[in-house]
Formats: sequence, structure tokens, C-alpha cells
Amino acid sequence: MDARRIILDLREGRAPSRAALNWFAQGLASGAVSDAQAGAFAMAALLKGLGEEGRVALTLAMRDSGHVLDWDLPGPVLDKHSTGGVGDCVSLVLAPMLAACGAYVPMISGRGLGHSGGTLDKMEAIPGLSTQLSEEAFRATVGEAGCAIVSATGDIAPADKRLYAIRDVTATVESLDLITASILSKKLAAGLEALVLDVKCGSGAFMKTAQEARALAQALASTATAAGCPTEAVLTDMNQPLASSLGNALEVAEAMRVLTGGDPGRLGQLSIALGAGLLVQGGLAQTVEQATTRLEETLSSGAAAERFARMVACMGGPGDFAEEWQNVLPEANVILEVPAPKSGVVTAMDGQALGFAVVELGGGRKVESDQIDPAVGLSDMVRIGETVEEGQPLARIHASRESTAEEALRNLLGALTIGEVAPAPVPLVLERIRG
Amino acid sequence: MDARRIILDLREGRAPSRAALNWFAQGLASGAVSDAQAGAFAMAALLKGLGEEGRVALTLAMRDSGHVLDWDLPGPVLDKHSTGGVGDCVSLVLAPMLAACGAYVPMISGRGLGHSGGTLDKMEAIPGLSTQLSEEAFRATVGEAGCAIVSATGDIAPADKRLYAIRDVTATVESLDLITASILSKKLAAGLEALVLDVKCGSGAFMKTAQEARALAQALASTATAAGCPTEAVLTDMNQPLASSLGNALEVAEAMRVLTGGDPGRLGQLSIALGAGLLVQGGLAQTVEQATTRLEETLSSGAAAERFARMVACMGGPGDFAEEWQNVLPEANVILEVPAPKSGVVTAMDGQALGFAVVELGGGRKVESDQIDPAVGLSDMVRIGETVEEGQPLARIHASRESTAEEALRNLLGALTIGEVAPAPVPLVLERIRG
Repeated sequence: MDARRIILDLREGRAPSRAALNWFAQGLASGAVSDAQAGAFAMAALLKGLGEEGRVALTLAMRDSGHVLDWDLPGPVLDKHSTGGVGDCVSLVLAPMLAACGAYVPMISGRGLGHSGGTLDKMEAIPGLSTQLSEEAFRATVGEAGCAIVSATGDIAPADKRLYAIRDVTATVESLDLITASILSKKLAAGLEALVLDVKCGSGAFMKTAQEARALAQALASTATAAGCPTEAVLTDMNQPLASSLGNALEVAEAMRVLTGGDPGRLGQLSIALGAGLLVQGGLAQTVEQATTRLEETLSSGAAAERFARMVACMGGPGDFAEEWQNVLPEANVILEVPAPKSGVVTAMDGQALGFAVVELGGGRKVESDQIDPAVGLSDMVRIGETVEEGQPLARIHASRESTAEEALRNLLGALTIGEVAPAPVPLVLERIRG
Repeated sequence: MDARRIILDLREGRAPSRAALNWFAQGLASGAVSDAQAGAFAMAALLKGLGEEGRVALTLAMRDSGHVLDWDLPGPVLDKHSTGGVGDCVSLVLAPMLAACGAYVPMISGRGLGHSGGTLDKMEAIPGLSTQLSEEAFRATVGEAGCAIVSATGDIAPADKRLYAIRDVTATVESLDLITASILSKKLAAGLEALVLDVKCGSGAFMKTAQEARALAQALASTATAAGCPTEAVLTDMNQPLASSLGNALEVAEAMRVLTGGDPGRLGQLSIALGAGLLVQGGLAQTVEQATTRLEETLSSGAAAERFARMVACMGGPGDFAEEWQNVLPEANVILEVPAPKSGVVTAMDGQALGFAVVELGGGRKVESDQIDPAVGLSDMVRIGETVEEGQPLARIHASRESTAEEALRNLLGALTIGEVAPAPVPLVLERIRG
């Protein structure tokens, strides 16, 4: 095998064979493929495409470039992946719900970059908790709590780790084939039996239009399913933040309110909508209706909250999180209410701008090395379609100092539109795509 | 400036600005552009093209990535470049002919790789001679002899040096834009006032068809001329070796026979055909006919041979090369005649196979680190269209040992076709293209 030959085939529109892509992925992991070759490969893939078969082959090859977990557990191994958006803390709600239904959820998550928060950063807002577990501790947590939300070890899909860094600097991020292989190689390396994908669409998501989001959803669902992991992709609305809070500890608190039987709201609704199909797929329910009922019961019974607390304890956090979360989560020094500048109806919210407002508060990263302040963010946000009176609070800003709170206030007012006529409501789940 | 933005523009079919390409070439030279970025850039350039303006801009940017020579001499600074073929020792003949007419020829040449010989390797077949001159010695040789054939210093077009190495391993060699910028950036850095390009076409050349060769000739001539160096490209036939000898010392001997007034043959004819337009361009002749006469006289008068000998002496070779070349050039231990296996007419010669036969004899490199045996090769070769009797010699093999000579004999017989009807003769000069 020869990297040059593989790149040449791709360049000429001939999808490389599975053996060739295996060799290439191994070479990315071992260093036998040079940076220059990886850059040329990524550009040829972006401009010429890998085709359906090639995309599956690259996904499997990248999965197999490192350690692939396998499990021997008394229930199905399930997971959810989201393409990322603002105020999306579904993982924190859904993982313990699935666990409470008898599934096992070994969730390998990421950190925030850009306007979108990261699940690991949210988990680490819990004092004492670490998401960097050894494989042994990861397995023990999954076994004991039914779910674990952890960061990837270097040995999970190392080919993706290398190619991802190279795509970032070579203007080759936007390849549908490479996005698909990158997302799925890591997920499939976790040894899943079924997967649900939440593909976000709208102002707060990476995919701004339904067309882009649908193309990605189709590629992801068909590739994952062809790679042996039955997968459904759900297109969901992200024209406003999912939860009414943004920020790390604030989103944990939001998740805990839902898990402990508070109003499920959009966050709870979406968690159930994503989980129901997965429970059926995993054989834990006969129908989506039955699955929905089971998931709802995990909230009202406190079973899901108990699973979350078990996970927190296994990962180094407090031992009584289900009861004590309100007392242990960090709080910001400055809390500022944002009064509505005029009366009217909230007609639009720029999710991306709200996400960046949280980054400016110190709740996210501008560069990878930035430290995060877990306490800051926004809470009690209004929703699109809500009627407000002048002076009525639109949201609360949680900041570390007055000056950043004032800046966030200006950013927040710039991200909200107050008009006269409520827009037609957009459903939360736009479309379901089976692989 | 940002490499990512430049690559993105190229990827989307927008030719980067001249300022952007300058920045990129500087970045290639300095290391600010990473290997991965260079690989992605090369692939995007190959698949999307730079366009005419972009090609000129990249050529100038790569030229300016290092040292650009300038000259203050009492005659025009001229040069020739060939795309390379077997038995092509035109440089050795043409450079001293031009010098004898009053031009100055600072010829920066390359080494052989693959089936094609390298001018530097041929020069170094002369005992004592070194082609690695300091800039000072290079200038002194050009001033004293009127011509110098040397290797590039690291400071000539360093951006090309880096990109060339990257193209070699990333399946991006075949980009017309990148080939053009690579060839011309080095030539233009030599500070030329006019240039002639010998674009070879046929079995012994890199371009096998007239169509490919014409496209390259047009790109080269128009780009060089737009970059400020008036350039003519000449499409020439390379369906058989140019000279009747192949090998380093053997080609020096062939050049010396022409320079000292022997039968000019195809080698002499092509040297004159390439040089005539250049002399007119450089103002040393009014018309091509006048230029042709002047060039012919440099052979019959011995003036060109005397220039060659002066150059050899300046570069560390023997002081009396014009008289002593037959006594000082190295000779092989084994000389084997190849008898024709049957009577007939030579209908075809596979130039590439003949080139590789010389490599197998030790006269060329398989990998860059190979040592060359300057004495080995082929001589006294028949030509296409020549009638031969069974047993009559087709060529002489010059080898270091019997066994390699026998192998060369088999290779040579495999590369020649003896048939019954002579093919229609192909002219040496196929087409002339002005920039």
C-alpha cells in the first residue's frame, strides 16, 4: 500500500478500497501517513467525495485505528450524539433516563469550542467530578450507574484525532464524508448496539438550514447503520436555545430540575423524543408509545435522578447529588436581571450570539487552552412567541464581575428581537430519518 | 493573511490574490505554512486550477521566496530549459554556443531521476569538475566563460523546493499550474532576459502525447512571458533518444564531437533550432536565419568548444578539455556490441525503456541517494528508419561487468522494434509556441 496511490484514486474520483482506507487510517494513527498526505487526502475527499461505500469504509477504518470497546452487560448498549447547539444539555437528562430503563450508556463526549457548550465542561461544573476516567473506572461507572459521560482516551479513534486537527487548518472541515466519519468513528468505537443522532438546525446550530441539516442527518444515519449500528437521526429545531439556561453549572441545574420531576419543558420533551426510538431499538420497549411512558416514569419516580447521582458519585463528585445539587453547584458573584426595553412579542433569538455572550462571560473557550468559569451564564430566558411588558425580565445574567455582566446585557439585547406579531410556532422535532 | 483562507478560496474556485500567493510562498519558505496546508493547497490547485493570472502570480511569488540573481554583463542573459528526455545533452552544446555568440548563460540544472538523465550528472562525469559552486564562483564562471551549468543553492526559490517535495508524495505532481510555477520560479530566479523551452513529446519524454505537451508548452510560454521574461516554447520529438549515446560520460563525448566540428546530427540541429530564436530575442542577431548562421559558425570555428573548455576549467575540471576530452573521460570496463537478431528496418524505439536500461547499468538513480557510474551507458545506437542486416551492430553497451552488460543487451533488444516498412519520418521540431 502507498498513500500516494490512495490519494491519486480519490483525486481521480475512484473511491479507494476498504483495504486501502484501512491502511490509510492505520497510517494516520501510526504516522506512516505524513501531514502533507493527510492534507491532500482531506482536500481530495472534500472536492471529489468518497461515495456511500467509501464513507462507510473510512468510518470503520478510523474506528479500527484504535481501541474498540466491547461490553458484556445485562442490557443493551445505547448512546445519543448531538451535532451541538446552545443550551443543549440533553445528554445530562437522557443518559440517566435510559440507564433507569435498563440500558447502558457509555457516552464519550466533547468539550465546548466556538459558541456551542461542551457536555464535559458541564459535568465538570460539579465539584470534585472528573471526566477523565481510566478505562477501568469508565467500565465500573457504566456497570454501577448504567451511564458514564467521559472524555475520549488517546486510544479511541486516533486516526480521527489526527485528521481532525489537520482539517481544522486546511479548510477541509466542511466535507460531509469527513464530518460523518469523524463523528461516527468515535461513537462506534464505544461498542454501541444502537444510536440516536440529534441533528440541530437553526440560528444556534452549526447547520443553519434544514437542507444542510437533512443532508448530514441522512449521511450519518445511513453510514452508522451500514457500519453495523442501527441508527435514527432526528432533525430538531435550534432557532432558540433548547433550555432556558446557558452556562455550565446553570445547565446542570436545569437538567436536575427536569430529572427531579420539575416541568420537563423543551429539554425534557426532546430527551424523551430522542430516547423513545432508542429504547425500542434496544429491545426495552415494544412501541414508541410504551417507551415514552417508561421514560416519563423515570422522571416522575426519581429513578433517573438517582442514576445521575450514582454516576456523579462514581466520577468523584458529591455522594448525595440528587438531594444536594442546589447547595453544591457553584454560583456567580453578580446576578443581573435584563429588563425588556419595550413591550411586545419575542420574535427571534440569535442562538449563536447568545452562545458567544456566554463565552464572553468566561463560560466557554475562545482558544483551546482557555479556563472556563463554571458558574457564569444566562438563566430564566424568555422564549420565542412569549409576550413581554416593558421592564419585565427577559433573562438573568450570571457573571463574575459587574463589567462583564454589563457587556453580556448589551450582547443579550442585541441577540433578541421584540416585535408585534408572534411567529408561527416551529415544532421541536422537524423530521426523523432512519439509516 | 491566513493559509486557511487562501486554501478555502482556491477550493471554492476563486483564484487567490497576488498578495495572498506571495504570503503563501513566503510561508512555504519560512515554515509558517504547514506541510498539511501545503498538501491541501497542492490538491486544491490540481483539482480546481489557479487560472492564468493565478499561475503567473504563484510563479512570481515562488521566484521571490528566495534570492533572485541580477547581472551586470556586456551581453544578454539567456537560458534554455528542457522538460527532460533520454539522450538529451542539448544544454552541453547550446550553452557554449550561445556564449560564443556573446550571450551569458547562467544555467541552473538538475540531476537525473527516473529514466531521464540529469545535466549535472553529465557535467560531473568530467574528472575534477564540481557543479556545486558558491554564488561568487558561479558569477566568475559566467563572466569568464559566458556560461556555467550549476546546481541550485538552497536559496534559489526555496518555496518551490518545499512544495516540490510535498507534491511528490501527495499525488499532486501532474498539476499544469504547479509544474509551470515550479519550472519557471527557479529559471526566473536566475535573472534571465529571455528563455527558450524545449518541451519534449513522445515515448522517451514525460509527456507522451502532443496534446499534453502542447498544453504544457502554452502554459509555460505564456506564464514566463507574462512574468516579464520573453519566452518561446518549442515542441520537439522524443520518440527516440536525441543523441546516439545514452549515459553521462558518453553524452559528454557526444556533445564534444558536435562542438569540435563533427557531424551535428539531431543533437546539433536541435541546439541550433532552440538557440536561433533566443539570439534574436537577445538582440544578438536580426533574423532567425542570421542567428542560425552565427550558431553554426561557433561549431566550425571551434569557438563553442573553446567556451566549453573554459567553463570546465573554471569549475575544477582539466585545463585543456577541448583537446584532451577523449583521453580524460572515464571509460567502462566492458564494451559489448549488440547484433541485430534479424534483418529489417528499425520501426520504433522505447526511449523510456532505454533510459531505464542505463539506470540498470548504474548510469542513473533509482533512489536519490544512489551513486552514479559515469562511464556506463549505450553508444552508436541505430535510429528509427535505419535498415539493418542480421548480425549488424544495433548499439554498443558500456558496462562495469559482464553480467550487467548481458542484462542491458536483453533490455535493449526489448526496447527496439525491427519491422519491414520504414515509418514516415517525424520532424524534430513539431511546433513553436510564443508566450
